[in-house]
Amino acid sequence: MPNPTAAMLVIGDEILSGRTHDSNTHHLAGALTAAGIDLREGRVVSDDADAIIAAVQALSGTWDHVFTSGGIGPTHDDITADAVARAMGRSIDVRQDARAILVEHYKKSGTELNDARLRMARIPEGATLIENPISAAPGFIIGNVHVMAGVPSIFKAMVASVIPTLTGGAPLLSRNMDVQRGEGDIAAPLAELAARFQQLTFGSYPFQRNGVYGTNIVARGQDGAMLDAAEAEMADLFG
Amino acid sequence: MPNPTAAMLVIGDEILSGRTHDSNTHHLAGALTAAGIDLREGRVVSDDADAIIAAVQALSGTWDHVFTSGGIGPTHDDITADAVARAMGRSIDVRQDARAILVEHYKKSGTELNDARLRMARIPEGATLIENPISAAPGFIIGNVHVMAGVPSIFKAMVASVIPTLTGGAPLLSRNMDVQRGEGDIAAPLAELAARFQQLTFGSYPFQRNGVYGTNIVARGQDGAMLDAAEAEMADLFG
Repeated sequence: MPNPTAAMLVIGDEILSGRTHDSNTHHLAGALTAAGIDLREGRVVSDDADAIIAAVQALSGTWDHVFTSGGIGPTHDDITADAVARAMGRSIDVRQDARAILVEHYKKSGTELNDARLRMARIPEGATLIENPISAAPGFIIGNVHVMAGVPSIFKAMVASVIPTLTGGAPLLSRNMDVQRGEGDIAAPLAELAARFQQLTFGSYPFQRNGVYGTNIVARGQDGAMLDAAEAEMADLFG
Repeated sequence: MPNPTAAMLVIGDEILSGRTHDSNTHHLAGALTAAGIDLREGRVVSDDADAIIAAVQALSGTWDHVFTSGGIGPTHDDITADAVARAMGRSIDVRQDARAILVEHYKKSGTELNDARLRMARIPEGATLIENPISAAPGFIIGNVHVMAGVPSIFKAMVASVIPTLTGGAPLLSRNMDVQRGEGDIAAPLAELAARFQQLTFGSYPFQRNGVYGTNIVARGQDGAMLDAAEAEMADLFG
């Protein structure tokens, strides 16, 4: 059975302007690969309701799971929750369970739960909350869309709590080796190897370290024994 | 007049599997912002012809410029050039000017220009070559699509040679300040500020440094005098 599929949607002007380097896609990619879920597409859009809605609808209609990052804070440019609700055809308002989480959190620190912070309790009708162990304001799941924070530490905590609830397939395994030859030299034998191991995929990535050029060859697949066999052939061919 | 728009398309299984952290989008974002071209969307797709074709067609039909990264090397999984040719309805074959560049490059190093390396001279009909000062194999421009290498050093060199050929708008300028207050505290006055400066956009980004929580406020726009005025008000409000 093929693995479940997923897409990542990064939301935020700060990524597209070059202010901020997105690290959430890379983190999610590793976590999904380990869980046997295939990340198949990534997108980045600005803090624009129409752009978010179009991307959420396209991705949630194409892949099994969608993960979003960014735009669920208290300020005027945090419009992700409302845009996702519209994309999924749900109403949205301050929800009492989310409000209670914020009340308790801000009481502890003696901080006012003002109108801006209360916006973080806006949750689409029928959504399931995602715990935020760092700053309380929850993410949520609506349909197949997982809405999470953009701050990397909070995003990671939310990914860690969500992934175990998903049914994964066989984890994607890999074997890799460094070869002190250029990609152009190993291309032909690598293509033959790939043709013989149709259930695996092979990638090659040129590198330069301390002035030495070489290629890192990666074989990926779900069958560990088959990967071992491919690795042995790689060692014969390129070792 | 609004600025020209652009999209970035990253191509490669290694990004989606979590092996490799894409840094090219971030680099392009900064370079475009400085040139007055608005990066409006980013996508990542796998080394799959249908996925590449669909993304190229969607992005090139929506935005003024498209930039791609990855999949133009010599190995079997480097299918970007052929997929982009199909997406743009062009034929593709080894082109003599690209071949001549490779012949000269490999002659210098005494390396064989084998069939695999010759694939890097496959260029769509009517395309303009993009120089590769590092490893010779060129990128190319077809229609509004700029096809560039995935290796970050080569990608950067290609961006540097392409951007000056594009007509930019007014560069996007920014002013920013750090505030030792949470986002929830500055949200209301920041929203009022944003409402008064409709031609600017305002973002706020929470941070934690040495245990101190705060918010970085960023104002973005093309009018330096207006940004100066907004910065003065930010200092009054939050300083």
